[in-house]
Amino acid sequence: MTSAKGAESQNLDQILKDKMPALGIDLGGTKIGCAPVCDFKVVGEPKKLPTPKGADKIIDTLVGLIEEARRDHILRGVGIATAGIVDTNTGEVIGSTGNLPGWAGTPIKKVIESRTGLPVHVDNDANAAAYGEVKTLGLTDKTCVVAVTLGTGIGGGIIMKGELYRGAHFAAGEIGHLRVNLNNHRLCTCGLFDCWEAYGSGRGFRATAKELLTNVTVDQTPLAALLPDPPVDQVCSAASQGDIIAKRIVETWHQHVCAGIVTLAHTLDPDCFIISGGMAKFVDYELLKELVIDKCLPRVGERLDIHQSTLGDVAGIIGAAQIALDHLVLN
Amino acid sequence: MTSAKGAESQNLDQILKDKMPALGIDLGGTKIGCAPVCDFKVVGEPKKLPTPKGADKIIDTLVGLIEEARRDHILRGVGIATAGIVDTNTGEVIGSTGNLPGWAGTPIKKVIESRTGLPVHVDNDANAAAYGEVKTLGLTDKTCVVAVTLGTGIGGGIIMKGELYRGAHFAAGEIGHLRVNLNNHRLCTCGLFDCWEAYGSGRGFRATAKELLTNVTVDQTPLAALLPDPPVDQVCSAASQGDIIAKRIVETWHQHVCAGIVTLAHTLDPDCFIISGGMAKFVDYELLKELVIDKCLPRVGERLDIHQSTLGDVAGIIGAAQIALDHLVLN
Repeated sequence: MTSAKGAESQNLDQILKDKMPALGIDLGGTKIGCAPVCDFKVVGEPKKLPTPKGADKIIDTLVGLIEEARRDHILRGVGIATAGIVDTNTGEVIGSTGNLPGWAGTPIKKVIESRTGLPVHVDNDANAAAYGEVKTLGLTDKTCVVAVTLGTGIGGGIIMKGELYRGAHFAAGEIGHLRVNLNNHRLCTCGLFDCWEAYGSGRGFRATAKELLTNVTVDQTPLAALLPDPPVDQVCSAASQGDIIAKRIVETWHQHVCAGIVTLAHTLDPDCFIISGGMAKFVDYELLKELVIDKCLPRVGERLDIHQSTLGDVAGIIGAAQIALDHLVLN
Repeated sequence: MTSAKGAESQNLDQILKDKMPALGIDLGGTKIGCAPVCDFKVVGEPKKLPTPKGADKIIDTLVGLIEEARRDHILRGVGIATAGIVDTNTGEVIGSTGNLPGWAGTPIKKVIESRTGLPVHVDNDANAAAYGEVKTLGLTDKTCVVAVTLGTGIGGGIIMKGELYRGAHFAAGEIGHLRVNLNNHRLCTCGLFDCWEAYGSGRGFRATAKELLTNVTVDQTPLAALLPDPPVDQVCSAASQGDIIAKRIVETWHQHVCAGIVTLAHTLDPDCFIISGGMAKFVDYELLKELVIDKCLPRVGERLDIHQSTLGDVAGIIGAAQIALDHLVLN
């Protein structure tokens, strides 16, 4: 009887544990978002704060958010998604992060674990988002899913058979820095020339708009008045209203997005691409698919599925929390 | 006693089997090479024949080579490396193969198995070569090795933890068709514009040489007399003798090779690249490494190992045979 009771209470422990959320934190250059997550779902009020300057202040803010969440939830752990190349064993950012000066080298996992007593998992933000997307959509049996974050920049995460593919030095999926041009035409924010990000991102869209509008007059299109930095939404809205210059800008941007997709298709031959980030809503998925088929070898393009993320902004939060939870279950 | 004897004779069976080679066949557009292979080594005289025209004649030639090899060896099976996208389950070429007209759609495995009675494995040639390289070098514990065949075209094979990564539709590693330029400048033999192959291959080298020599006179460099199709070895030899135009051609080609390596490094973050194929001997590995470090994110380029294949021409033969053997052991 005792052992049966023991088993029963163990089961109860497990059931309670399974219901305990992890706090998912998405740390960006301008803001920090967080929410408690369980079973791939946000289970409490999401919070958003501006990102303070400097590693110490960021750590203080993260600890504050965790303590605040603990008032309403018994947390099993914390998952943090951050920009930069992350050593997921040590939980440290090992690559440069232009938007978070001083952040690289901070032993995030160690510091936050010691200040909160909770287990912490730190991951690259695009990897976390990819994990969130794939697990939520139940695509864990797929050979390969590539999640592309089209935002101000471009990030990516590669999931093979439900697991993140991190590469030999945690740098796999840095797909914003695929080389899509040979002529040193556009400088990327990373300091390299002609990265995919310099063309296919929101920043790339605006650079294209600027280039194409430079010798155009307001008589040809009212968009010319928006120089030097034509906003993406205004260009897209003009295109949908038939402005031929705006249509050319939008089409050129789609060709730029296509270039990176084609390269990834020929390298990884994935089952599908999931597009998220602030620019995802400006993609014409029919057009993109047509362009990709036209620029891929036969049998590579046709079979590709390209679709928009269903999680939107919370992909990183859900993914980071869920990796932490799955990691805790495994350990 | 009987069962011990049975076990002993089973062991002997296994030992004999382990010593039985598979015939590795590398089927190219112009020639067919083959050799018996055991334990990652060629164990008999390699043979070479011109590739006949038409699927039926190719099959007859392959069967002839197998029967010939059987006079000297008890074969465990046959491994065939062929150009094109191969469904390795059915042993059929499912993608187009410009150099082997009529070859796509041939049920190679089925036909040769029925005519020889031997188990047959069919694979993509670059994948087979990659497998041969990685297994021979003992790199099976590496997270990712990318084998790049720089020949008339560019092929590739991706090995993760000792296993071929084939993608969702057997098309992974078609790295010759990475997009490295945006301006529809060079047409690839596949019909697409600006594939890596159109720049980084032997054909790409000659196209670059042609472009750069077009407005140059024989007074500037004797290479100008070699137009319209300057041979690679003559350009490289002139460069090593200090011809400044030849040096510029060779450097530009290295930049083109670098572009694809950079893209693969940011996508897959491999432990190393192994370069094989007819152009591998023209690569200045020090220069290529320097260019790659310069064009990669910090921490991605520095850690990359790039070296020349040690197997050379027989990589495809060894790889194809060894996949067949490993496959037979598993089944």
